[in-house]
Amino acid sequence: MSTTTAPLSTTTSTLITNIASLVTNDHHLPGTSGDDPLGRMRNAAVVIEGDRIAWVGAAREAPATDSRVDAEGRALLPGFVDSHSHLVFAGDRTEEFGARMSGRPYTAGGIRTTVEATRAATDEQLAATLARHVREAVRQGTTTLETKSGYGLTVEDEARALRIAEAQVDEVTYLGAHVVPPEYADDPDGYVDLVTGPMLDACALHARWVDVFCERGAFDEDQARAVLTAGIARGLVPRVHAGQLGPGPGVRLAVELDAASADHCTHLSDADVDALAGSRTVATLLPGCEFSTRSPYPDARRLLDAGVTVALSTDCNPGSSYTSSMPFCIALAVREMGMTPDEAVRAATAGGAAALRRIDVGRVTPGARADLVLLDAPSHVHLAYRPGVPLVAAVWQHGTRVL
Amino acid sequence: MSTTTAPLSTTTSTLITNIASLVTNDHHLPGTSGDDPLGRMRNAAVVIEGDRIAWVGAAREAPATDSRVDAEGRALLPGFVDSHSHLVFAGDRTEEFGARMSGRPYTAGGIRTTVEATRAATDEQLAATLARHVREAVRQGTTTLETKSGYGLTVEDEARALRIAEAQVDEVTYLGAHVVPPEYADDPDGYVDLVTGPMLDACALHARWVDVFCERGAFDEDQARAVLTAGIARGLVPRVHAGQLGPGPGVRLAVELDAASADHCTHLSDADVDALAGSRTVATLLPGCEFSTRSPYPDARRLLDAGVTVALSTDCNPGSSYTSSMPFCIALAVREMGMTPDEAVRAATAGGAAALRRIDVGRVTPGARADLVLLDAPSHVHLAYRPGVPLVAAVWQHGTRVL
Repeated sequence: MSTTTAPLSTTTSTLITNIASLVTNDHHLPGTSGDDPLGRMRNAAVVIEGDRIAWVGAAREAPATDSRVDAEGRALLPGFVDSHSHLVFAGDRTEEFGARMSGRPYTAGGIRTTVEATRAATDEQLAATLARHVREAVRQGTTTLETKSGYGLTVEDEARALRIAEAQVDEVTYLGAHVVPPEYADDPDGYVDLVTGPMLDACALHARWVDVFCERGAFDEDQARAVLTAGIARGLVPRVHAGQLGPGPGVRLAVELDAASADHCTHLSDADVDALAGSRTVATLLPGCEFSTRSPYPDARRLLDAGVTVALSTDCNPGSSYTSSMPFCIALAVREMGMTPDEAVRAATAGGAAALRRIDVGRVTPGARADLVLLDAPSHVHLAYRPGVPLVAAVWQHGTRVL
Repeated sequence: MSTTTAPLSTTTSTLITNIASLVTNDHHLPGTSGDDPLGRMRNAAVVIEGDRIAWVGAAREAPATDSRVDAEGRALLPGFVDSHSHLVFAGDRTEEFGARMSGRPYTAGGIRTTVEATRAATDEQLAATLARHVREAVRQGTTTLETKSGYGLTVEDEARALRIAEAQVDEVTYLGAHVVPPEYADDPDGYVDLVTGPMLDACALHARWVDVFCERGAFDEDQARAVLTAGIARGLVPRVHAGQLGPGPGVRLAVELDAASADHCTHLSDADVDALAGSRTVATLLPGCEFSTRSPYPDARRLLDAGVTVALSTDCNPGSSYTSSMPFCIALAVREMGMTPDEAVRAATAGGAAALRRIDVGRVTPGARADLVLLDAPSHVHLAYRPGVPLVAAVWQHGTRVL
């Protein structure tokens, strides 16, 4: 294509050019190397048309467009895909965090603190808090965000959490089975009946995914299977919180039910790793959680070497991981989890997309959604090389510049 | 003081009010608790007059001013004091970082790569790179910044590094003794003669501090003493890079010479800790360096429990710690070094000021420089509770709003 080509259509088109390093995550594109899973191009350009990527290639071959953005020799990436967060909540757990990090006892706290505050909040308060965190995530380059219910734990409160979530984010998960609420402390199976019965009835239309916290102290294997199979029967696709606090049946169950993702994966048996490797279930690692709870990190290297698809996500929530920063998770993954910078960036983009069974995001290729992050740096490696530094210079979401 | 008080003077005055939590670092102020080293006030207000803090107190008692900023229930802190950086440099070490983090061999690299690039750069290039990093630091809340020479290692290149630094930052350090340059590889004592002779002559007027990298592979105890005493004789105040890679004589030497700071302090003997505790030498910890080199972190708890004054700083440099983020260092200090959130915030403000022997910064008290950071959070604890999230909402430097 020469520079004299006419604009591609009557839709507004924008050229982003002078990109020193472009991460496409598509190594089939001309100009990329088949050996490089990031599908990098040097001196590249991208054309956005409407909400989609219309063209990707060498800057010198870019077509004519209505407008033009000079990337000034910086790096362009797919927007981050954050496939695991808990952002429909109220209240604050600063005191609990401060006590934990100062070695002071703190008897209150835990998920139930947030449940209490969330139930007491108005719809407007919950929506405003969610909107604030979504804006914060976008400013840090997140262009696809999943979020969950799980702090309501009544039929009405779970359903309203999902309604509030679906108005603001792309991907919504029903997590009625987050924890057994106090009023069912003596009857956990009764709570599972609620989650798989009337609560599911009220929630199924407002979510794409069903999730369960399968862990000692939360839901056991049989309860988790009941929650997930009930959700599947209503058209929801399963994902599982598994192996966060200790080894357990969650990962095997996720694979058995063809879940899109097993999340946390901090404690894995060899059989768990083999099961993941032989499946299309993604292992979603959440290092912000280990950072904020001073816990050992998951071993991403072991998973990658076994051939498992790995995603990185924030787990953003007010208790165990109150970060919305995908760049921070990338830096942690490289420092602590044995990932190379390339692997971590791929896990935060294409990996997250795989965990959400999406092919329209996490890639910069013709036809994909025009979700892009321009860094104030010449390379994606700077996300790990420059930890904590806000490097996101511009963000396009659905083709619109939002930062 | 009542709200009917007239403006304090003809200089422009600004009231910042509705501060949910104010960190003053001055527990002698009325309204603070003597038990709280952070000198916190709730529902506070601050008056800026010219480049100074004119008044601090309860919001309801604030005097009248020319203008007014509503903090909207957020937290206000002293600007961060970053007392250790290396920002007069050229070139990039992305490849070296990527290789280190990917387990690939990388034979080139090290400080000498940066020396070569820095010598080859023009004054304008060095000044522009420094300015870019200073702006980046200010956007993250750093209002006092120290930086060093040390990538020139010739009389001319060290002197120009200091001239460039003094035009842009508050605190400038002569670090001719960073590493022995290749041309003196066979004559390290000859290089010490240069550093303490003609190079010092060219540099002494452009710096306040003299520093030396006292470590196996760099400069030994006798060489380090020679560098520091020569600097002291010319009116410079000593600070020392000590105990980064292994135990050594650096900390004891720092205390012996009443250095303002011993920096790194990752490897300390009990005698080192005792020496620091009995001195006014600050231990400046640089966790960004351990993060980016996958090294064990210093034990801040041990130092604090012994009564040592601790500072936190970025060590920002393109090799071992390419972060300019004081919030990131605070989060790491809490996660990895046994500091409470309160201690880490104090170390990043008043601690840094002590490491620079300054009492006009690092505190929010009448007469101090009006260097302030407003967080997008109700408490300073969020700097650790929300790792990686850019929380700095506004910055005042010398009384002027710069973000």
